[in-house]
Amino acid sequence: MLLRMSTLFLRTLREDPADAELPSHKLLVRAGYIRRVAPGVYSWLPLGKIVLENIARVVREEMDRMGAQEVLFPALLPREYYEATGRWTEYGDTLFRLKDRKGADYLLGPTHEEMFTDMVKGELSSYKDFPVTLYQIQTKYRDEARPRAGLLRAREFVMKDSYSFDLDDDGLKRSYEAHRETYIRIFDRLGLDYRICFAVSGAMGGSASEEFLAPCPNGEDTFVACHGCGYAANAEAVVTPAPPAVTAEHPPMQVLDTPDTPTIETLVSYVNEHYGLGITAADTLKNVVVKVRTPGSDEVKVVVIGVPGDREVDMKRLEAALAPGVPEIFTAEDFAAHPALVRGYIGPQILKSLGITYLVDPRIVPGSAWVTGANQPGKHAAHVVAGRDFQPDGTIEAAEIKPGDACPRCGGPLSIDRGIEIGHIFQLGRKYSDAAGLDALGPDGKPIRITMGSYGIGVSRLVAVIAEQRHDELGLVWPREVAPADVHIVGTGKENQIEVAVELAETLESRGLRVLVDDRPGVSPGVKFKDAELLGMPTIVIVGRGLANGVLELRDRASGAREEIPLGEAADRIVAACRG
Amino acid sequence: MLLRMSTLFLRTLREDPADAELPSHKLLVRAGYIRRVAPGVYSWLPLGKIVLENIARVVREEMDRMGAQEVLFPALLPREYYEATGRWTEYGDTLFRLKDRKGADYLLGPTHEEMFTDMVKGELSSYKDFPVTLYQIQTKYRDEARPRAGLLRAREFVMKDSYSFDLDDDGLKRSYEAHRETYIRIFDRLGLDYRICFAVSGAMGGSASEEFLAPCPNGEDTFVACHGCGYAANAEAVVTPAPPAVTAEHPPMQVLDTPDTPTIETLVSYVNEHYGLGITAADTLKNVVVKVRTPGSDEVKVVVIGVPGDREVDMKRLEAALAPGVPEIFTAEDFAAHPALVRGYIGPQILKSLGITYLVDPRIVPGSAWVTGANQPGKHAAHVVAGRDFQPDGTIEAAEIKPGDACPRCGGPLSIDRGIEIGHIFQLGRKYSDAAGLDALGPDGKPIRITMGSYGIGVSRLVAVIAEQRHDELGLVWPREVAPADVHIVGTGKENQIEVAVELAETLESRGLRVLVDDRPGVSPGVKFKDAELLGMPTIVIVGRGLANGVLELRDRASGAREEIPLGEAADRIVAACRG
Repeated sequence: MLLRMSTLFLRTLREDPADAELPSHKLLVRAGYIRRVAPGVYSWLPLGKIVLENIARVVREEMDRMGAQEVLFPALLPREYYEATGRWTEYGDTLFRLKDRKGADYLLGPTHEEMFTDMVKGELSSYKDFPVTLYQIQTKYRDEARPRAGLLRAREFVMKDSYSFDLDDDGLKRSYEAHRETYIRIFDRLGLDYRICFAVSGAMGGSASEEFLAPCPNGEDTFVACHGCGYAANAEAVVTPAPPAVTAEHPPMQVLDTPDTPTIETLVSYVNEHYGLGITAADTLKNVVVKVRTPGSDEVKVVVIGVPGDREVDMKRLEAALAPGVPEIFTAEDFAAHPALVRGYIGPQILKSLGITYLVDPRIVPGSAWVTGANQPGKHAAHVVAGRDFQPDGTIEAAEIKPGDACPRCGGPLSIDRGIEIGHIFQLGRKYSDAAGLDALGPDGKPIRITMGSYGIGVSRLVAVIAEQRHDELGLVWPREVAPADVHIVGTGKENQIEVAVELAETLESRGLRVLVDDRPGVSPGVKFKDAELLGMPTIVIVGRGLANGVLELRDRASGAREEIPLGEAADRIVAACRG
Repeated sequence: MLLRMSTLFLRTLREDPADAELPSHKLLVRAGYIRRVAPGVYSWLPLGKIVLENIARVVREEMDRMGAQEVLFPALLPREYYEATGRWTEYGDTLFRLKDRKGADYLLGPTHEEMFTDMVKGELSSYKDFPVTLYQIQTKYRDEARPRAGLLRAREFVMKDSYSFDLDDDGLKRSYEAHRETYIRIFDRLGLDYRICFAVSGAMGGSASEEFLAPCPNGEDTFVACHGCGYAANAEAVVTPAPPAVTAEHPPMQVLDTPDTPTIETLVSYVNEHYGLGITAADTLKNVVVKVRTPGSDEVKVVVIGVPGDREVDMKRLEAALAPGVPEIFTAEDFAAHPALVRGYIGPQILKSLGITYLVDPRIVPGSAWVTGANQPGKHAAHVVAGRDFQPDGTIEAAEIKPGDACPRCGGPLSIDRGIEIGHIFQLGRKYSDAAGLDALGPDGKPIRITMGSYGIGVSRLVAVIAEQRHDELGLVWPREVAPADVHIVGTGKENQIEVAVELAETLESRGLRVLVDDRPGVSPGVKFKDAELLGMPTIVIVGRGLANGVLELRDRASGAREEIPLGEAADRIVAACRG
């Protein structure tokens, strides 16, 4: 492949686009890889299209290597498939819905669980046909509320999605492991820095699940990591190590007058000042009331969540812990309807008698004593002992994770990092095979309900993630596997420099390199150098002033290393540099 | 590439699908290449996906070779681009329209003229940047009123569309010619039988245009062909050779009583019987009244079309001839409003005095005499001479073409054949660059309005067209360039036949062939042979009973030729057969 800048459909921009905040977004636009068409909807210019295809190629090669088979579903899908699983409604505003000329309902596929399940049901019937893994690389649509960050959260985007179909749980585990290894190979080939994070299943239902997150200061997702042992997890998946139960004797519970102390801070400073308790926020017990709705039912259950007062309830962790129930914070109206729950002064002492479920953070161990509400305005209680003065109905992972918290694996300090989700592997189980009635006929003639895994990679998103991780102040720094070309040859324009550059480009192309040559006449060397750094090919060769002395300059874009190479050896040296 | 039938995600069907009429549709479903999801919306199974990719690869290679540059536009497009050119409305029910969560209007792109034009306007500005040709291979959406014939008229489909941008008409002609040659190379490589037909531009506006049609008895399009000189054209584009003007003297016009002769048949038999004129239908002049609407205007013009009485007016030819005007046939109500036009008895003699435009078939030459209406119920006129008794306002190509009509190029007899459009090349001109204001700054600092060409290939449709042209009663017969595999090796299952078949498959794969091996245990030889013929790989190798004598059978799927080959030479012989 030989691309010539003189004819390449490309215009680089010196100014950052007005709507871009992230480096990847700014650089991909400035370097002429993508253009915005609508919020979250982009066109790909020639260099961007090559990068996108390179990533898709790596994904395809590794998926084929693991034995997955490629299919292709439409994006335009009739409502009926998504009606059967309830997702036509569940997806809410995120689903693009439309009608055809006959008034029939369609959607633009945001994900294809139903379609894959239906396809397998249509084709396979015997236990001998399983296991099977299918994948597609296809354009998906989600009407994001806040499309942002260029390709990172787009409304039209390319995904690789795959599904494994197994006869039993052991098979599913093997399929899951095979995907995990394949994803590692893919992301390694793409030169990504990433962490494999334990994930909870969230709204998808099912069991084991991991996310591949690319650490990135501008990432939308946070994850918890231990730099000591390498543990990484979504905040939702972190398990709090429980301290041992307390056996010490405590004084009896004591109700204290604590006027105007509706917050933890006011409470701590009041009781230390007036009662000399000498406590910190961590010694108080904060009780948060929520209503929990069960989807598909009208039932609403009141639940109180108890956490140490130095921590907030993390709504995402709470939601994950209560799923499929959906928690909502108690409103002033709700409090008015439950006069026994005194806002700002709730204590767990009365919950049992009210018949209200009480779930506590794992740190609230039996025998531990707390300062908490006394269920009267302006009053708190001290020496309130778990197991003595109240009895929790269970524990819950709902308290926020803080930097420095103990790693559940090694006990070392956790950090909280930002990242971008690049892949997700997930033991989906039988949710969709149950909905579709997907069975295989077993050797004994009895049906076997198929169990599924679901695996995704954001292919177009990866273009931005790689750009986000691989750039400097001058421009993009593509890893070789995804770069639009191996080498960017700059002919600086005086005497026969362009001519030599083009000859060299042709030689390198004939030796199998993918070459971009800057053969533009009448463009200054400074502009050409700037463009080469902005565009980000891994190897840059300058055919410039040195040519008079028979030397070219070979630059490594990533390290910035420069060396002079004799013209006669140039092709060999460049091929060696590119094949490394 | 090595595919094993034992694990391939494939189920062949013995029965034709209920909704399929065409062989290509039946066979692609039966052989497990595609599955229907909704009317005109299909999924691709693994073998179908490979065929689709093979076709896309050939198209991409040849487009790249001509110097076109690949880009990729979204399918989800905001209304504003199509509003500017009026196509948001013009497209009517064929456009899939939808709203996003904020209520903004979007469409699913049926074609991307506006987007290409806008992209070039955004990137290029100097005459030095031109010419440029861009293309994409992308999924398009059209809400066809009658999706039919599987992939032939789908609602979601893959197209290659390209656009050339030139500074002047000569440049456009060069770009057009380059595309024409590229299309010839593509369709030749794909093993297609096709004709390049002169086409009129129809609703697209512009000038020179040709369609590539694949002759096919089940095709939706008709085209006119001369088997003598190779001339081919859409019916709309055929030019009628005009006979020489007639100089002979004619008797004066004579009005005849012709009661109850509202049709040409009744008229001819009446005047021959009662007046001994001895005429045929070709000697009568039939006058058809139409209303012509101009888009974007309220004006409706009455026009009379005169054709020889042995021909109907072909509405598609008439529409093409009057474009952008839109003709409608006169209704009973219209006749009531124009009492001078006596339905069934109209003659051109009075049209001038009525101020009605009269356009005639080129055969109505000056001096020719006709039997036609006398503008009174039950009366006709004979010896009505063009130029003497009436004066046409011009000629029009509106009469139907009949088999045997004279070829406009060589005069030989024309035939009317059926075909499927597989490609279209079109000198679009400045319609879209005018709408977008797409200019280049010339060397003199003055703007140059860019002129465009538009070029399309139906990539997913080609899968069906090739299947339609290349099949027999047993199944598909893929040309090698598009076949999912070069060779299909059948191990028939006794003794070590499957083992030898798999070994041979691995050897052939290592030698660069794309191999499909039938390694299914416990499947009868008859089923395997039937599947091999149905699936349609170009070369079939049977590892069967002959193996005991050290021979395999090598079959050519297309010719049916069979020969025995010794096992020791098998790999060499098969590679030779596949590389031909």
